[in-house]
Amino acid sequence: MITPSQSSETLKAIRGSFLDFIDDPFYVPESESVRYIADGLLVLENGRVKEFGAYDTLKHKYADLDITSYTGRLIMPGFIDTHIHFPQTEMIAAYGEQLLEWLQQYTFPTEGKFKDRNYAQKVAAFFLDELLKNGTTTALVFAAVFPQSADAFFEEASRRNLRMVAGKVMMDRNAPDFLMDTASSSYQDSKALIQKWHKKGRLLYAVTPRFAVTSTDAQLQMAGKLLQEFPDVYLHTHLSENVDEVELVAKLFPESKGYLDVYDQVGLVGERSVFAHGVQLTDAEFERLSEMGAAIAFCPTSNLFLGSGLFKLSKAKSDQHPVHLGLGTDIGAGTSFSLLVTAHVAYKVAQLQRQRLSPFRAMFLATLGGARALYLDDKVGNFDSGKEADFVVLDMRATPLMAFRNPGSTATSLKELADQLFSLIMLGDDRAIQATYVMGELAYERESDRPH
Amino acid sequence: MITPSQSSETLKAIRGSFLDFIDDPFYVPESESVRYIADGLLVLENGRVKEFGAYDTLKHKYADLDITSYTGRLIMPGFIDTHIHFPQTEMIAAYGEQLLEWLQQYTFPTEGKFKDRNYAQKVAAFFLDELLKNGTTTALVFAAVFPQSADAFFEEASRRNLRMVAGKVMMDRNAPDFLMDTASSSYQDSKALIQKWHKKGRLLYAVTPRFAVTSTDAQLQMAGKLLQEFPDVYLHTHLSENVDEVELVAKLFPESKGYLDVYDQVGLVGERSVFAHGVQLTDAEFERLSEMGAAIAFCPTSNLFLGSGLFKLSKAKSDQHPVHLGLGTDIGAGTSFSLLVTAHVAYKVAQLQRQRLSPFRAMFLATLGGARALYLDDKVGNFDSGKEADFVVLDMRATPLMAFRNPGSTATSLKELADQLFSLIMLGDDRAIQATYVMGELAYERESDRPH
Repeated sequence: MITPSQSSETLKAIRGSFLDFIDDPFYVPESESVRYIADGLLVLENGRVKEFGAYDTLKHKYADLDITSYTGRLIMPGFIDTHIHFPQTEMIAAYGEQLLEWLQQYTFPTEGKFKDRNYAQKVAAFFLDELLKNGTTTALVFAAVFPQSADAFFEEASRRNLRMVAGKVMMDRNAPDFLMDTASSSYQDSKALIQKWHKKGRLLYAVTPRFAVTSTDAQLQMAGKLLQEFPDVYLHTHLSENVDEVELVAKLFPESKGYLDVYDQVGLVGERSVFAHGVQLTDAEFERLSEMGAAIAFCPTSNLFLGSGLFKLSKAKSDQHPVHLGLGTDIGAGTSFSLLVTAHVAYKVAQLQRQRLSPFRAMFLATLGGARALYLDDKVGNFDSGKEADFVVLDMRATPLMAFRNPGSTATSLKELADQLFSLIMLGDDRAIQATYVMGELAYERESDRPH
Repeated sequence: MITPSQSSETLKAIRGSFLDFIDDPFYVPESESVRYIADGLLVLENGRVKEFGAYDTLKHKYADLDITSYTGRLIMPGFIDTHIHFPQTEMIAAYGEQLLEWLQQYTFPTEGKFKDRNYAQKVAAFFLDELLKNGTTTALVFAAVFPQSADAFFEEASRRNLRMVAGKVMMDRNAPDFLMDTASSSYQDSKALIQKWHKKGRLLYAVTPRFAVTSTDAQLQMAGKLLQEFPDVYLHTHLSENVDEVELVAKLFPESKGYLDVYDQVGLVGERSVFAHGVQLTDAEFERLSEMGAAIAFCPTSNLFLGSGLFKLSKAKSDQHPVHLGLGTDIGAGTSFSLLVTAHVAYKVAQLQRQRLSPFRAMFLATLGGARALYLDDKVGNFDSGKEADFVVLDMRATPLMAFRNPGSTATSLKELADQLFSLIMLGDDRAIQATYVMGELAYERESDRPH
């Protein structure tokens, strides 16, 4: 299917059906927020979008450019996973527990292995290949507590030229000895990693206290200090996932007004702060997140797997207090690397609350919505000129069942596209990812499509 | 991987790791209800199990028999799907509605197409191929209202020599004209189909009123009459799926004591009666189902897709009032043909209620549990001698992620097997089905394993 580009070194073009978002379909009618070009051309220069539009409009201007054609395929911006743990790849599908017991029984022993730099590198490589295989080109990633685990991750991400945000875990209590740092060492180690990796190429750093349960107030204050010293790094942690956890945090921080307040008091709630889960948030906490420009990573496969509960999507996307929202797979408590599968389960979580999550809204969360949650929408998330050209080629007829369900050819209306997209979300998985491009370069191609 | 059998015409043998159930692990400790033979031999005669045991024990007795070896694979009894609609195959993943609106907007128009016998036959063929591809060898199946749709299904099932239970829908109100029969015609048509198909080869008939909403009392009485005239046919319908539906049934049957009572009053609740869903059942209704030996088909992917709610597994499998229980995919409101995926979502439904569904219990429901729910456990459901040899060859390392999660070789303990099986349930789909056998014959083989 792919014709290797014979074009000049810097310019290349991709033809196919394109879908992206130019605004938030939770607030702006889909007719104005969804951009669909049934026969489009994406012109790239040095890995960035130079021009994007209808093939018929652009074809003369780029007549001498060789074009890679994906006929009958839907091309979308690369998916953005706003919460995932790379050291938990091997412990996906760990049986029988809810959050706090699951951490003790499975997570901590597994993460202990990531003291070994080589092991961490091996897992990071597999993990990033899985992301690409699932169409994910940007993620906000937990490493383990060991600085070398973050080094390993950044190195592998750098090798693939990926826009990734990650950080070493900070945790100085309520965990096994072999997994704990101290307030002071976590500050020093994180600072060194920021200096080494933040803004190196496409990489970005996230200050990453695991959650309030495993950090002392002193350590959370150090996290706040890092954010003050490096105002454009991220804050990445967990928040209000599980009822028992919320109760425990209340006990651990008797002075706080609530779980979010624990973070708020030390300056961890602001732009570029991403809180995973938020299943148990109060209305006041949603409002505070909205006010501060912070983001939530909604992780439906994980929330169901650990029995944490049903995320209140309508609260996060309320008219009064909109909160930045992305989707997270939350591997290894999540059960799939695929943001299509994650969107599928998000739909079911909404249905259980008698709400509808439209396919466009779901895929907005997986692309531009995630980019906005990460304040990266000036760089990725759609096909606007100047954006980094990370994109995914989707095959909506990837399996016999998908082809049976979706016999139509290229959609000619948003209504038709919505139906096709919904079937992709409900039936698709990594098999629907035909190819993934990073900065305009082919980074993954489905096995059956590779030349034999 | 498969060595074609060179053996005598009637005898053949399969070697591999075998897992089946000899009792219900919800009530009997797994050490006594789970049968695992790490290196086993399944000897078949004329499509039935002749002998089953450890390879080392049986190898001398069958020394001259050619053996098909599935090294490193897990072989289980064919999966049993206790609730599914074949005419809804093409409308899987229909957006945005809960039960009653979903029926009106999507289901009824689709089922109208099944008046065309040829169309019905084409879909039945695709449907049965999907079942085999997913390891399902027995299912309890809704056809459409048209007798010819049931004929088409039975013909295709017969062609594949499958043990299938099906029936034409009965519905004489609250549906479009083109989909309605009458009390009298539904009786006549069902009777003719029973006489034509029930016990023909491996086929069995189910009297199939869609649900109380779309049948008059007169029609339900006709269904009861059929059960009296043909005491070994099945009754297959829906029950207490959705809150609005339960309210509507209460209005339609003001004399009834509840939803189940509507069926009970006309003699539809007994052995071989299978009720899909039961999400909204009362304790008294669970007790009544238990008392009567009736069964529930638990359809978790469907219950979440339509937002119906969380099935109370612990009520169905209570010590005091155990109810026969199977898993149902409920295509097209369900979102996967795979009983592995269905078991995965069943686990999550249990987790959301702070209950654990062990991998053995889940796979019991998909095999012997389903057979017991259908009163077919004298014929299928495990590897006991004399049983029909329907089985599935499972590849627990079918994808790179599954292989990464599950690097171990053949399990040597139930504990190890439980972990492998759980990862199969959480990460597996049709790709994990290497082969499906029907009456000892290879009926499906995964594409990548086929000889090139």
